[in-house]
Amino acid sequence: MSDDDQFKPNVGVYTDPQHNLWLDTAEPSAKDAQSGSTLQPGEVVVQIRSTGICGSDVHFWHAGRIGPMIVEDKHILGHESAGEVVTVHPSVTHLKPGDKVAVEPNIPCHACQPCLTGRYNGCENVLFRSTPPVPGLLRRYITHPAVWCHKLPPTMTYEDGSLLEPLSVALAAVERANLKLGDVAVICGAGPIGLVTLLCARAAGAEPIVITDIDQGRLDFAQKLVAGQPGTLRTYLVERGKTEEDVAEGIKLTLGGLEPDVALECTGVESSIASVIHAVRFGGTVFVVGVGKNEMKFPFMRLSTREIDLRFQYRYSNTWPKAIRLVDSGLLKDVRKLVTHRFTLEDAIQAFETSANPKSGAIKVQITNL
Amino acid sequence: MSDDDQFKPNVGVYTDPQHNLWLDTAEPSAKDAQSGSTLQPGEVVVQIRSTGICGSDVHFWHAGRIGPMIVEDKHILGHESAGEVVTVHPSVTHLKPGDKVAVEPNIPCHACQPCLTGRYNGCENVLFRSTPPVPGLLRRYITHPAVWCHKLPPTMTYEDGSLLEPLSVALAAVERANLKLGDVAVICGAGPIGLVTLLCARAAGAEPIVITDIDQGRLDFAQKLVAGQPGTLRTYLVERGKTEEDVAEGIKLTLGGLEPDVALECTGVESSIASVIHAVRFGGTVFVVGVGKNEMKFPFMRLSTREIDLRFQYRYSNTWPKAIRLVDSGLLKDVRKLVTHRFTLEDAIQAFETSANPKSGAIKVQITNL
Amino acid sequence: MSDDDQFKPNVGVYTDPQHNLWLDTAEPSAKDAQSGSTLQPGEVVVQIRSTGICGSDVHFWHAGRIGPMIVEDKHILGHESAGEVVTVHPSVTHLKPGDKVAVEPNIPCHACQPCLTGRYNGCENVLFRSTPPVPGLLRRYITHPAVWCHKLPPTMTYEDGSLLEPLSVALAAVERANLKLGDVAVICGAGPIGLVTLLCARAAGAEPIVITDIDQGRLDFAQKLVAGQPGTLRTYLVERGKTEEDVAEGIKLTLGGLEPDVALECTGVESSIASVIHAVRFGGTVFVVGVGKNEMKFPFMRLSTREIDLRFQYRYSNTWPKAIRLVDSGLLKDVRKLVTHRFTLEDAIQAFETSANPKSGAIKVQITNL
Amino acid sequence: MSDDDQFKPNVGVYTDPQHNLWLDTAEPSAKDAQSGSTLQPGEVVVQIRSTGICGSDVHFWHAGRIGPMIVEDKHILGHESAGEVVTVHPSVTHLKPGDKVAVEPNIPCHACQPCLTGRYNGCENVLFRSTPPVPGLLRRYITHPAVWCHKLPPTMTYEDGSLLEPLSVALAAVERANLKLGDVAVICGAGPIGLVTLLCARAAGAEPIVITDIDQGRLDFAQKLVAGQPGTLRTYLVERGKTEEDVAEGIKLTLGGLEPDVALECTGVESSIASVIHAVRFGGTVFVVGVGKNEMKFPFMRLSTREIDLRFQYRYSNTWPKAIRLVDSGLLKDVRKLVTHRFTLEDAIQAFETSANPKSGAIKVQITNL
Repeated sequence: MSDDDQFKPNVGVYTDPQHNLWLDTAEPSAKDAQSGSTLQPGEVVVQIRSTGICGSDVHFWHAGRIGPMIVEDKHILGHESAGEVVTVHPSVTHLKPGDKVAVEPNIPCHACQPCLTGRYNGCENVLFRSTPPVPGLLRRYITHPAVWCHKLPPTMTYEDGSLLEPLSVALAAVERANLKLGDVAVICGAGPIGLVTLLCARAAGAEPIVITDIDQGRLDFAQKLVAGQPGTLRTYLVERGKTEEDVAEGIKLTLGGLEPDVALECTGVESSIASVIHAVRFGGTVFVVGVGKNEMKFPFMRLSTREIDLRFQYRYSNTWPKAIRLVDSGLLKDVRKLVTHRFTLEDAIQAFETSANPKSGAIKVQITNL
Repeated sequence: MSDDDQFKPNVGVYTDPQHNLWLDTAEPSAKDAQSGSTLQPGEVVVQIRSTGICGSDVHFWHAGRIGPMIVEDKHILGHESAGEVVTVHPSVTHLKPGDKVAVEPNIPCHACQPCLTGRYNGCENVLFRSTPPVPGLLRRYITHPAVWCHKLPPTMTYEDGSLLEPLSVALAAVERANLKLGDVAVICGAGPIGLVTLLCARAAGAEPIVITDIDQGRLDFAQKLVAGQPGTLRTYLVERGKTEEDVAEGIKLTLGGLEPDVALECTGVESSIASVIHAVRFGGTVFVVGVGKNEMKFPFMRLSTREIDLRFQYRYSNTWPKAIRLVDSGLLKDVRKLVTHRFTLEDAIQAFETSANPKSGAIKVQITNL
Repeated sequence: MSDDDQFKPNVGVYTDPQHNLWLDTAEPSAKDAQSGSTLQPGEVVVQIRSTGICGSDVHFWHAGRIGPMIVEDKHILGHESAGEVVTVHPSVTHLKPGDKVAVEPNIPCHACQPCLTGRYNGCENVLFRSTPPVPGLLRRYITHPAVWCHKLPPTMTYEDGSLLEPLSVALAAVERANLKLGDVAVICGAGPIGLVTLLCARAAGAEPIVITDIDQGRLDFAQKLVAGQPGTLRTYLVERGKTEEDVAEGIKLTLGGLEPDVALECTGVESSIASVIHAVRFGGTVFVVGVGKNEMKFPFMRLSTREIDLRFQYRYSNTWPKAIRLVDSGLLKDVRKLVTHRFTLEDAIQAFETSANPKSGAIKVQITNL
Repeated sequence: MSDDDQFKPNVGVYTDPQHNLWLDTAEPSAKDAQSGSTLQPGEVVVQIRSTGICGSDVHFWHAGRIGPMIVEDKHILGHESAGEVVTVHPSVTHLKPGDKVAVEPNIPCHACQPCLTGRYNGCENVLFRSTPPVPGLLRRYITHPAVWCHKLPPTMTYEDGSLLEPLSVALAAVERANLKLGDVAVICGAGPIGLVTLLCARAAGAEPIVITDIDQGRLDFAQKLVAGQPGTLRTYLVERGKTEEDVAEGIKLTLGGLEPDVALECTGVESSIASVIHAVRFGGTVFVVGVGKNEMKFPFMRLSTREIDLRFQYRYSNTWPKAIRLVDSGLLKDVRKLVTHRFTLEDAIQAFETSANPKSGAIKVQITNL
C-alpha cells in the first residue's frame, strides 16, 4: 500500500428498504484500519482492491429481499472480494501487511452440527457478509478473521481473487453433484454461474456437455469461453412456449441421443428444472445451483419412476484452497474472461446499473478500489 | 403338491379398462404346467400359494392406470407372490419340483445400462408382472425364470414369501436413503409400505423414529407393531388444515426438538412431502417411496437453502436374498403382523373389495390358493 | 456435589517412562476447581465420577509408548470419563454446576483441513487427553472446553457416560464401514472393542454376524451379551496354527456358506486381518479398528483380485450425541454389561492390575471417584 | 474386408507351460468365420485388426502364471483388440458386417451377485479372454458376444479401439478412486498403465499431479505426453536405497508441501505402495492398480492413525462407452501417443520380444493384422 492510500476515508456501497443505492462512510475508520487498534484476536484489516457484483446484490437492491433474508435497514452490499492485508492482530501468524488475499465471506461458529461435520455453509450461527443484517464487503476497508482470508499466489491478481467466490459456488456444485470424467452433462443457463459451472464441468472431464439458455448471445459467449479446449460443447436455445418434454427431447437430440448423467441447473427457473428432470437418465442427478421462487411445481412421477436425485447447492465450504490451485495452474484460468465491465468504487452506482441492465451484455461487473 | 391339485384348471384375477374384476382361465394350462412342455431354457412353473394385494392392484382396477402405465385390455393383476415349484426346464439346476419359492416379479434384460450397472429396476426392457400389458401373478400357475424365484428356508411360509415384495420396497428405500444407526428419522404414512418401512428403519437402528398419519387408528397399529422392541417410536397425527410449516414444527417437537436426518415419505401426498422438507436438518434427506400426482408443488427455497436431498425409490433390485435372511432370522419377523385379512382364490373379488375399503381396517390382504 | 466433596484434594493416576504407576496430586487444585478462577472462556471444571480403563492406558504403563506416542515424563492416564460440572466460565451458557456430563477427550483446533471438513479426529493440532504429553482424565477434577462436555439424560449414570468413549469408537467404525441392514458381517476379537462393536453391528441390522476369538470364554461372553435379542450371532474359535485360508473357510462355513460383506477387525493382529481379507466377498470391506504392529504383511493379490477395501478407524468424530441417544433409548443399553470390575480412585493401582491380567476375566474395569 | 482377406487362414499367438511362443492355426476356421454357421445366438465373428501387448501377456509367456491363473496347456494370448465384424448371428441387430468394433474381452454370467450389482468384473463365472484356460484375442478371427463388441465412431482407428482396454483400467481406477477436480494426486509408475492413468487423472482435473518412477526416461516421456496441456505435472525420480519415509517426503516436497488426496499406484511394488501410504493426507486414498507379489508388508500403524483407505482395481466394468466418448472427443486423444512400436501378426514373436525388453524403450507395442 502506497503512502497515498493511507489517508483515504473508508466508504461503502449501501442500499436500504426503499431501494436506494449510494456511497457513504463505513466502518472501520481509516484511522482504525491503519492502527489495527480495534482488531480482535485472529482478525486482520483488508483493503479491498476488487469486488464483483453478484445477482444477489442487485436483487437486494431492487427487491429488498431474497427468500427469508430481508433488507430492513441501511445495508452494505458485496461478498466477492479480494484485497491487501493492511494490519493484523498480533495473534495472527500466517498473514502480514502487504499480503494479497481473497476473502471467504463467511464467519461460521465452529460449534454447531453443520460446522463440526464439515458443512459450515449450513452453520446455524453464520455471519455471511452482505446477507442482512451483516454488512457486505463493498467498502474500502474491512475487518475479517484471518482464517477466512486466503493468500493468493503471485500469478493471481486481485480481480482473480474476487472471482474465487462465484467459482467456489460452481466448484462446490460440481463436487457435490459427483460429476465425473466422461459423464454426460447438461448445464442450464449461460449467465455468470452457468458459465463458471461450465468451466468447472469441462475441467472435471464431463463429455459431452450441452449448455442451454433462452438468449443466443449468451450461448455464443459460452462457445467462445471454451474455444480451443478439447472436448465437446453443444448449445441448446430454449424457445419459450415449448413443453418441458419437448425441451428435454431437444437436449437429448443435441447430445446425439444420450441422456445426461447429471444436470447442473443454474437458472432457478421452474420450467428449466422440470425440463432436465425429463431429460436425465434413470438414476441421474438434477443438481440445482440457481435460486428462484419460494415454491415450484415439479414432474413428481418422472422423478419417482426414474429414481432421479434432486439436489441443491447453498454457498460452499472448503473451496478456496482448491479454487486457488485451479486458477493458478491454468486449469480454470478462463474464469477471467467472465469480467466484461470494470468500474472504480466512485462509479459503483454505474457499475450496479450496468450489472442490472440485461441489454448491457454484462456477465461479471467488477468494482476496483484504487 | 397333492394329487388333487394336479387337475385344477389355471385361473387368474382379471381387470379391464371398464373396471371390471373377475376370475377367468389363465395361461399356462394345467396340462402344460404339469408337463413343462412349453418351458424355455431357464424357466420353471410355479404354483402360486399366496399373493398379497398391493395398492397398485386396486388402483389399476379402479383408475385403470398409474401414470404412464395404462390398462388397455383384459389384464391379470398381482405381483406379491410365493408358491411351489411344480416343473422345471432341464437347464435349471438350483430348483426342483416341491421347492418353496418367493417370486421376484421382474424379468430384466441384462444388457442395458441400468442392468449392467446393477440397477435393474431401471431396465429399459423390463417385463414387470402386473404392469400392463405384462400379466400379473394372481393365478394358479405361472411360468417364470428360475433366477427370479428365490428359495425359502423352512422357517418361512408361502405367506411370508409373498410379503418379501413390499418388504423389498422398504429395504431398497432404507438402504438407498442411507439410513444409519442412530439417525433421527420420520416416516410419513402408516399404511402397508409405511409400516414395513418402519420395521426396516427400526431394524437399521434409526433412533428416535416418529411416524405420521392422518388416521389415529393406523398410528395405534404402528405402536402395536413395534411394542416390546427396544428403541423409541413416537407418533404424530397430521391434522388437516395445518400449514406445512406447522406440521414440520409438530414433527420436530415430537422428536424432542431434534430435526430428522432422514424422512422416509410413504404417502406420495404433496403436503406431506412439503412438510418433511420443512422438518429435516440442513443436509438431510427426504426419500420418497410413495407415488402420487404427476406434478407437485414443493418448497423450493427451503430445499435450496438447506441443501436437502430429494430422492426416490422405484421398485427394487437385489433385495430378496437380504429380505429372506432378515425374516428368517427374526429381525423382521414382525412383517407377518401386517396381514389382517385372508381369502381364497375363489373369493378374490371379496379380497379386493376388502383391500379397497378404508373402513375395513385392512392393512395387507392375502389371497391363498389352495 | 455434597459439602464433603468440596474439600477433597485433586489427585490423578500417573505413569512414567520407568513404568511406575502411582497416585499423586494433580491440576487444577481443589481450590481453583471450586472457584473457577483459572477458567478460560468456554471452559468448565468437571469432577470426574467414573473412568474406564482402556487397553491403551495399560499399554502406556507397560510399554511406555504406542507407535509414535511416547511417555517421556510423568503422565496422567485415562480418557473414558464422565462426571459432574462443578464450575463454569461466565461465557458458558449450555452447562451449569450440577450437570452430569460425558467428556469427549479431544480438543481440536477448528482451523486445519481435517477440522474444517468434519473429521476432527485427524486434527493436526489436537490435544487428546492421555496421549503424551497431554495429561489424561483419570483425576478428581479436570478443566475442559464445555463444547466437549456432553450433557447426559436422567436415564444414564456416570458409568454409562464413561462407556460412551469405547462406544464412540465402535459407532464411528460401523458408520464409516457403511455396515447396513442385512449385511453379512464378521467381527474379529471379543475383547471390549469387539464386543461393543458387536452391539453396534447388531443394532445396525447386520445379519448374520459371526464373531471370532482365540478364547472360548470371550466367545461365550459375546453370546450372553446378545442373548434374547433377535438376529443370528455365531462364534468361531480361531485355533493357533491354522492357515489364514483355513480360518477364512471356517468363518464362511460358520456363516452357512455366505461370504461377509464387511469384516470389522478389532484385534489388530496380522493373521486375523489376513484371514478376513481371504473371507470377505468380491468388493467387500475389511475395516480395521484394532491397532497393532508398525508393519504388517497382507495377502496383496487377494486384495487386488477381489477389489477389497482395506480401511481404518482412528478415534472418532461427532459420535457422542448419537451414542447418548442410543444408550438412553435402550438400543445399546447392553453396553453396560461390559463392566466386569469396579474400583475406587484410591484403589486405582489394583484396578490397572486387574485390567492388565488376562486371567482376571476382566472386560471393562471402571474407576469410580467418590 | 477386401476379397483377399476372405481366404486367409485363422492363426493365433500361443504360449505354453514351457514358455514357448509361436504362431499356429486357431479357431474358428476361416470357413466358419465367413459362413457364421457355428455362431450361437447373440454372437458375431470379428476379424481382429489391432491388438496391444499387455504386461500380463508377457508375464504368462515368461512366468507361466499370474497369482492363481496358470498356463497349463497351449494357450492363445491377447486381450486388447479391435477389429471388423465379418459375420453376425441373425439374432444380432445392433451390429452388421463391416462395423468397426472394440472388443471388451470378458463374458460375464449376468446371474451372480457381482453381475447383478453392476460389478461384473467380479463375476464368479466369467470367461476372460487370455486368462487360462480361456484363449485370448491374438488371432485373425474370434467369436464373441455382440453385446461386448463396442462400435467405434469414424474418428477412431482399430489401434485406437485396442487402446480402450488399458484405458478402461485407468478409467475404472480414476472413477473408483473418486479422483475429483482439484484433488492433489500422485501417480506411481510411468509405464503404460501409469501413463494412461496420468491422462485420465489430468482429464479429471487433478491438480497438481506428481508422477514417480525409477527411470528418468519414463518420467521424461510422461512430461512429453501432457506437454501443452494446462495444469501442473511434476516428476519425482525414486532412488533405490531411500527409505519409504524419505520418498514420501520427496513427493510432498515436489508438490510444494501439499499432501496428496489420492495416490494412484500403478507399479504393484511393495516399497512404492508403502511410500505413498506415508505421503497421502489424513483420510486420503491409496488406490492400487498395479499387481505384484502375493504378499506384501505395509506400514500398518500409518494406515490406522491416518485413516487411509487402501483400495484396489481389478479389470473394469462399464467403461467402454465412456472411453469411446473420451477418445472420440479429443479429451483423451493422447492415449495414441503411447504406441511406440508396431508389428504385423506374422512378426508377433518379435513384437513380444520388443515388449519384454526394457532397453527397447517400448511403452505399448501393437500387433496389426492385415
